[in-house]
Amino acid sequence: MTASNGAAIDAVADLAGQCSTDIPASARAMATLSLFDWCVVALAGTGQPVSRIIRDLVLDEGGRPTASVIGAARKVPPRAAALANGTISHALDYDDTHFAHVGHPSVAILPAALALAEDRDASAAALRDAFLLGAEASIRIGMVLGREHYERGFHQTATAGAFGATVAAGRVIGLAPAQMRSALSIVSTRASGLKSQFGTMGKPYNAGIAASNGVEAALLAERGFISCDDGLGAAQGFLATHAATAADWPAVGGFLFEDIKHKFHACCHGAHAMIEALQKLMTQRAIAPDAVASIVVRVSPRWLKVCDIKAPRSGLEIKFSYAYLAAMVLSGIDTAADHSYADAACDSAALRRLSQRVTVVGDAHISDTETEVALTLPDGLRVTGRHDLSVRHAPEVIANGLRRKARALLGDERAEAIWTSIAGIDARSARDLAALLRG
Amino acid sequence: MTASNGAAIDAVADLAGQCSTDIPASARAMATLSLFDWCVVALAGTGQPVSRIIRDLVLDEGGRPTASVIGAARKVPPRAAALANGTISHALDYDDTHFAHVGHPSVAILPAALALAEDRDASAAALRDAFLLGAEASIRIGMVLGREHYERGFHQTATAGAFGATVAAGRVIGLAPAQMRSALSIVSTRASGLKSQFGTMGKPYNAGIAASNGVEAALLAERGFISCDDGLGAAQGFLATHAATAADWPAVGGFLFEDIKHKFHACCHGAHAMIEALQKLMTQRAIAPDAVASIVVRVSPRWLKVCDIKAPRSGLEIKFSYAYLAAMVLSGIDTAADHSYADAACDSAALRRLSQRVTVVGDAHISDTETEVALTLPDGLRVTGRHDLSVRHAPEVIANGLRRKARALLGDERAEAIWTSIAGIDARSARDLAALLRG
Repeated sequence: MTASNGAAIDAVADLAGQCSTDIPASARAMATLSLFDWCVVALAGTGQPVSRIIRDLVLDEGGRPTASVIGAARKVPPRAAALANGTISHALDYDDTHFAHVGHPSVAILPAALALAEDRDASAAALRDAFLLGAEASIRIGMVLGREHYERGFHQTATAGAFGATVAAGRVIGLAPAQMRSALSIVSTRASGLKSQFGTMGKPYNAGIAASNGVEAALLAERGFISCDDGLGAAQGFLATHAATAADWPAVGGFLFEDIKHKFHACCHGAHAMIEALQKLMTQRAIAPDAVASIVVRVSPRWLKVCDIKAPRSGLEIKFSYAYLAAMVLSGIDTAADHSYADAACDSAALRRLSQRVTVVGDAHISDTETEVALTLPDGLRVTGRHDLSVRHAPEVIANGLRRKARALLGDERAEAIWTSIAGIDARSARDLAALLRG
Repeated sequence: MTASNGAAIDAVADLAGQCSTDIPASARAMATLSLFDWCVVALAGTGQPVSRIIRDLVLDEGGRPTASVIGAARKVPPRAAALANGTISHALDYDDTHFAHVGHPSVAILPAALALAEDRDASAAALRDAFLLGAEASIRIGMVLGREHYERGFHQTATAGAFGATVAAGRVIGLAPAQMRSALSIVSTRASGLKSQFGTMGKPYNAGIAASNGVEAALLAERGFISCDDGLGAAQGFLATHAATAADWPAVGGFLFEDIKHKFHACCHGAHAMIEALQKLMTQRAIAPDAVASIVVRVSPRWLKVCDIKAPRSGLEIKFSYAYLAAMVLSGIDTAADHSYADAACDSAALRRLSQRVTVVGDAHISDTETEVALTLPDGLRVTGRHDLSVRHAPEVIANGLRRKARALLGDERAEAIWTSIAGIDARSARDLAALLRG
């Protein structure tokens, strides 16, 4: 690591202390959409086995009831609520992604901000701004940690996420600049999370521990806990010990958070560009499923290790299978609804037959967010399409998509009630939002 | 990492499930002594600033009152008690050390075992055995992580300690073998702790997070939480991602725990062999302090980076200063009493003058646990002495030393009350022992 890592903690502390009036409206709009989407995904995941386990743990502990737990009537202390809510909201893996950060910002950051905003009775707008700044910090730290950190086996959602959660939590409780630096150094010895948990309950738990670590670090700093000067960039700080890739803090104007991508399909984000490209093609050309003789899908080679399961044996594996997901799109199955990914879908002869017509090709000229598809029809006609997730859409377009997703997951009435509440965020308290999540 | 790391989780799970009747009495005797010493050091550290901060945090959260907090009248849930008690008991840095483990086993493991033993109303003997097995696991994992892990910046007390705390906690609550493996894989994504916290409140906090992580992992596994198959030795498991040194699990008969070393001086363990050698020499030869013209101290080169501060500016720095500590021994100051390390001691002209006569030499032929001292008297006479901490002493000898230390720290009455209670461990419950620690 080079000396320039010393700049990291200063940059994060500056970001955390940014004046509210300097936050662009465009970034705020995206943060509000992520807040809505997070509530929806969290509520949809409330019945998952991992959600029940973590919720029962914190409810059984009890304690000062100041922070809501998703799907529970009783409240718990903020550290515990953050642990539970981070885990529950990532249980379906249907939350947002930031590709440059290499991770899921909302599930690690929002539960930390919400737990303390509810505890301190902050406004919903202050909660949203704290979340936005924390998410921005986690994205930038995620970029500094970079590809090497991820390839080594660390999970940015959890590691960079813990720092972002600290920023959000510290902002909500009004830490002074020196306290914020202390909180960041405290969390440097607590931040953790490994990718070897993927495919198990440990993946959503990683988001919960990040959120809980952020709350704990902020509360300790508020009480006068003294850590080292720079737990992030010091010689044996977090960056140096955790295989950080970059030597330099990213020089950016504006908010990288604006590139946040929400999931509109309940599967691995690596397959979303393919689904979009195929859906567009099928609709435009009005192609019947069985009219497709073969499909070639071209993706960034990095995804081949992530979501190219050829013959899925479970609903979870379908979510990581280009071939099967392509077959579902051709068959007109709703990829937005989680129930489409039942284990029984693996037994569909029609889907299996279609999936066998799919060839996936890694192409180093294609970015992480792009996919090209080429369909061959029986008469030899070849039609092609592509989609790039990195293209930004207007907030209204995203909002419409998220509302459709919410209705699919929660039903019309509940989805629209949440939408209405969050659309009126400037008149709400954090406690109003927390009330939406209780059982 | 080689494939043989796959053996690690099996070995740890086997150790955790070891039949009580197979535990040798000699290991149990040492564990009982460590239990006594831990109680003493924990109570002595109860008023430290970091102790107050962490205790206030968990007391303020409250919750189901089943586990005692050192120095508090009220109880809290086990996860919280473990966090507080690990931190409080390491606040003075006066607890035991295992040199092969490169760390402090008791402060990370005992708080986890005690919190759940009290919660479940286990016997004190079961608590002691669970602690012993957890400590043994942490020592062996610490050895596998090894020097490279430590030099990279990780703190075995916290990292290996979290696995040991999981073993101890899981043993207390009676996890089945498959649950114990789950718990170990759960904690693999939660274990953390950096050496860059040394010299700050973050060092004792590292012990607290290890203890708390162990309790959390055991409780989640008990509730059916499913993690990956092998979070320790898998391709991107804890060992591979955290710079483990060794490829092989140590093949040992018996308990490495029996090499545990208790501190009889309230300073860095690296200086203890020098203090012992000097004290022996001064007593045997009846040398007056000012009769010493010069002192040469020969130590393992690794300690030069740890405890060779030439001119300490605080009581804490005195604890890491060969020269100043030698001057204290020559002057007959009690190095066992924490109050001897007041900041004001730095201003003593007599100590400063004596300390300037000390030369410290790194010698690669000297082990971590040895020190040689050579004193030159004004008439040119040269007397030499040495001490090796690795020499095992009879339990009675250690017990006498620990009781002296306890009386120096807590006063005769309290020290002997704790001694009596722990000496009768087979007739006690964990709740009896926990009662000794409350305020």
